[in-house]
Amino acid sequence: MNATTLSIGDELALGQIDDTNARWITERLAAEGAFRVEHRTVPDDRKRIVQAIRDLAELSELLVITGGLGPTLDDLTRDALNDCCAGGAAMVEDSLARETLDRWFRGRGRAMPPSNLVQAQRPVNARCLDNPHGTAPGLSADLERTKVFCLPGPPREMRPMFEANVVPFLRERCGDVVMPTLSVHSYGMGESVLAERLGERMSRDADPMVGTNASNAIVTARIRTSGPRLEAMARIEAMASEVERLWRPYAFGRDGTTLAMATIADLKARQESVAVAESCTGGLIGALLTDVAGASDVVLGGYIVYSNDMKVRAVGVDRSILAAHGAVSEPVARQLAAGARERTRATWGIGVTGIAGPSGGTPTKPVGTVFIGIAGPMGERVRRFRFPGEREVVRDRTAKAAMQWLRLAMMGEPDTDLIWAHAEAPAAERENRDHA
Amino acid sequence: MNATTLSIGDELALGQIDDTNARWITERLAAEGAFRVEHRTVPDDRKRIVQAIRDLAELSELLVITGGLGPTLDDLTRDALNDCCAGGAAMVEDSLARETLDRWFRGRGRAMPPSNLVQAQRPVNARCLDNPHGTAPGLSADLERTKVFCLPGPPREMRPMFEANVVPFLRERCGDVVMPTLSVHSYGMGESVLAERLGERMSRDADPMVGTNASNAIVTARIRTSGPRLEAMARIEAMASEVERLWRPYAFGRDGTTLAMATIADLKARQESVAVAESCTGGLIGALLTDVAGASDVVLGGYIVYSNDMKVRAVGVDRSILAAHGAVSEPVARQLAAGARERTRATWGIGVTGIAGPSGGTPTKPVGTVFIGIAGPMGERVRRFRFPGEREVVRDRTAKAAMQWLRLAMMGEPDTDLIWAHAEAPAAERENRDHA
Repeated sequence: MNATTLSIGDELALGQIDDTNARWITERLAAEGAFRVEHRTVPDDRKRIVQAIRDLAELSELLVITGGLGPTLDDLTRDALNDCCAGGAAMVEDSLARETLDRWFRGRGRAMPPSNLVQAQRPVNARCLDNPHGTAPGLSADLERTKVFCLPGPPREMRPMFEANVVPFLRERCGDVVMPTLSVHSYGMGESVLAERLGERMSRDADPMVGTNASNAIVTARIRTSGPRLEAMARIEAMASEVERLWRPYAFGRDGTTLAMATIADLKARQESVAVAESCTGGLIGALLTDVAGASDVVLGGYIVYSNDMKVRAVGVDRSILAAHGAVSEPVARQLAAGARERTRATWGIGVTGIAGPSGGTPTKPVGTVFIGIAGPMGERVRRFRFPGEREVVRDRTAKAAMQWLRLAMMGEPDTDLIWAHAEAPAAERENRDHA
Repeated sequence: MNATTLSIGDELALGQIDDTNARWITERLAAEGAFRVEHRTVPDDRKRIVQAIRDLAELSELLVITGGLGPTLDDLTRDALNDCCAGGAAMVEDSLARETLDRWFRGRGRAMPPSNLVQAQRPVNARCLDNPHGTAPGLSADLERTKVFCLPGPPREMRPMFEANVVPFLRERCGDVVMPTLSVHSYGMGESVLAERLGERMSRDADPMVGTNASNAIVTARIRTSGPRLEAMARIEAMASEVERLWRPYAFGRDGTTLAMATIADLKARQESVAVAESCTGGLIGALLTDVAGASDVVLGGYIVYSNDMKVRAVGVDRSILAAHGAVSEPVARQLAAGARERTRATWGIGVTGIAGPSGGTPTKPVGTVFIGIAGPMGERVRRFRFPGEREVVRDRTAKAAMQWLRLAMMGEPDTDLIWAHAEAPAAERENRDHA
């Protein structure tokens, strides 16, 4: 089934608040088998609201509207719906809605401001929807072949009303036909390379349909199909497994799974542990790993070695090596990883040192240069990375590369290509080293 | 000037990712004097994109489109724009865009996948916009009286391109009349208390208009007005200063300023330093502080003391105190703060221990119980907090409370009220202690 959504309000039109409703509704629609073919946001302007309702009703069998049901002069959804479904005829007072309003104010020991009375009004051919969490009842009406629901803007009022009214409508109309989606996430290879691995599976006519997108270097395949529930679920599951196979070893999880969750799960499965020694990331890897519930089983802790003094005193980096190679160097990353592992007796140690920027770059070690070390049962490895982007991006990519590399090392594949890893230092530095 | 926005992508249409671009663009448009009269989101469907471009161009003098400029088969913005502005005629390769693409891949030592070539294509009567941060050039074209800009979806590519291209267009068209907004952020007191302090300044008829909202416990006053640039800026600046005065000492910064930025700035101004010892936050405070450029001047580092063993060996917490009081306790927070300070010789030490959940809570120390210690020139203080919400929320609030409390301590006001701080432990625990 096709659905559309419409958000109403000046505060949205001016970008002053986030439209969290639009995304929430869209996800719920998809889960129940409705594909949202269009969303609009319009300000508190009756003419624009009417136009949007008419256009969207034409595009879809279901239109879900949020906002503009309050008692004030700039709440115009009720009037606009009346224009569309009753040709602007006089509205009627809904006795049940009136009773609910009276009860709401009585229950709070407050007198009802007369302005609230308008909330009990409805178009003659519309229905009021009960709102147990606020004063604004919802509305539903039929526009030709389209069912329209008007829900209040506050999420804690809107969501229960959606579940109580829109979901039953969807289940009745869609029956067993659903439109499930499934995402497969990966890290470590560029989107175009991964898309090429999927080949014709990404054609717009394929079923299931597969699309890719990249967000903060996580490349995701979004798979969707539609059909009878069991059949559709089986088809989408088979395609997800195929994407995971084609994207091996970069795929790390589905849907809500983060790289940190996948890393913690792998450590738990192997009953192994990890500790970190972080310079340029300043605790970010620790923070991401410990954000996962249950991380305490496998994360022992670590060291934020932002100053050189901390590198030496907390983790045991040699002063002579710091002096000879600089803090951002291969041997320092090696000693950080080894030191974190040894001092905590963890199975795995991660050591990170780099130049996040914006300052601190040099011709041989430009901003974005990061050495990541992994120490484990197989010994110690260090890789040099050159991440693009600003400080925040360099730090984010460093944390992701460290976690993904640890996962690859656990799989016994520590030498697998990783995006932004360079086997060799830039020519200028190799030269320097030769002269040293 | 009227403006419209259009977001393109199945992942948006399906509610799989948040549309952060739409809000950011709308705020920037308003600041530059353009009112967004409508926003739409459509899936990767050429016909729907074309229809949306035509409708929105009719409504506005400026249309800003984001997404769908990537190299894959489901990136259809280029084709849809071509349908609208060149009647679907063959596209041409833009030599500058081609050169930029070549340079991008050469600079990263990677071969360009053939699929990326499509990104150098443009409608014959459109212009390519330089993208210094990615492979997707933007596009601009004229549709009758409407200027259309197509920008890439990733925010770090989109935002600089907006500033470099859309803003100059707006300044030329809108002239001197602007609609500036300014935000003042605070942490440590509830929204209703802070709103009361603003009083009549929050009336809907006031100019400048002031509204408040709370997001992740940061309470923000949003101030807006409109008028000739200099006059409007002066009015909004005066109101911001007044809000800051009324919200003292909780206000910490304006617009893009985070609590971490404010903390780093205060440390720098005093030429003081900080170190952390984090248990339940697992590195989050370190990560937030070091995310600020230039943090290395004042952040020495710290310890992620997730395991009890780390608390003892890395920071010197007494085993007997751990045994007597448990890891989540007042004396452990005190020793963590003091240990972090002494071992790093920082001016300030922050120690954090708590129960982030979902498991680990007890009747006397329920989930959300966190002890924060601050050690500094004034000695050591510990406060007990009880944060509401889930694991991620408890960790976030803990980090914010620690940073804001450090700021208050630096101002010489370490005893100022902070939201969710409790002078007393729950009755059950006090009893336990009395019996101990």
